[in-house]
Amino acid sequence: MDESTALIMVTTTIESIDQANELAAALVSQSLVACVQIDGPIISHYRWAGEIRQSNEYRLTIKSSLISWPRLKSRLAKMHPYDEPEIIMTVVDDASDGYRSWVIDQST
Amino acid sequence: MDESTALIMVTTTIESIDQANELAAALVSQSLVACVQIDGPIISHYRWAGEIRQSNEYRLTIKSSLISWPRLKSRLAKMHPYDEPEIIMTVVDDASDGYRSWVIDQST
Amino acid sequence: MDESTALIMVTTTIESIDQANELAAALVSQSLVACVQIDGPIISHYRWAGEIRQSNEYRLTIKSSLISWPRLKSRLAKMHPYDEPEIIMTVVDDASDGYRSWVIDQST
Repeated sequence: MDESTALIMVTTTIESIDQANELAAALVSQSLVACVQIDGPIISHYRWAGEIRQSNEYRLTIKSSLISWPRLKSRLAKMHPYDEPEIIMTVVDDASDGYRSWVIDQST
Repeated sequence: MDESTALIMVTTTIESIDQANELAAALVSQSLVACVQIDGPIISHYRWAGEIRQSNEYRLTIKSSLISWPRLKSRLAKMHPYDEPEIIMTVVDDASDGYRSWVIDQST
Repeated sequence: MDESTALIMVTTTIESIDQANELAAALVSQSLVACVQIDGPIISHYRWAGEIRQSNEYRLTIKSSLISWPRLKSRLAKMHPYDEPEIIMTVVDDASDGYRSWVIDQST
């Protein structure tokens, strides 16, 4: 894989649709990412303080370039309202050429 | 990883549920893929012509075999109604044996 | 990648929201996973007995540690009500430090 043209998919979750839209628009407007897709409400199951809990959240699926990742990782953690948000990143193994170019152009 | 039995997950988006169902059925019926899952509406945020926009879309999550990928990539781009659709592919790192066999059988 | 701190994302699907919530709660309570997110209903397209079919399902997106994977893979297959459920796993390439620690703590 050529690291200079690799794409990434980053996922985070947030508790309201308004926060999700605000974070998505901020990420795109700052050219940290090419696009963000929001789905939800999703139901999250997890353990907190020894108890199993469930809560509704919205999920952001972010597409960006691998070379933007260090900056995106740091900025997203600061922009996110949670103390410890889920921020996970997977490198995309292949993409259509036109889409790849568009993502690289938008997020570098 | 054994490339001949590797599975892939491919994602694309499309603007209506009717288009999503039509594309999904065509991919399965042509044995290009084993299954397609549609979720949505999702909200997409992106920049177009210098402006931040948002629009509703439906997302297709496609499961196929790695050996089908060159053919799937090319055919999906032709079948998709967008000029530059999102087509991204990730190789799956592991899967249950029965599911792996079923996907390989359906998409080669 | 350091295998002892690597995270994984595992996906499965199930036919009702009640089954989805029950499976998610069981996975978290048994410390096999850190969290499970449920979305749906999604529409699944696939071929069965030579016919193209579609059905509604719910999708579970599971976050756990790579070292838990052998145990999770085996247990999930037994806990799942389907004979041949979709169980696919992708290793996460990077994550925020706090989230990584939390997942590792919850699922080992």
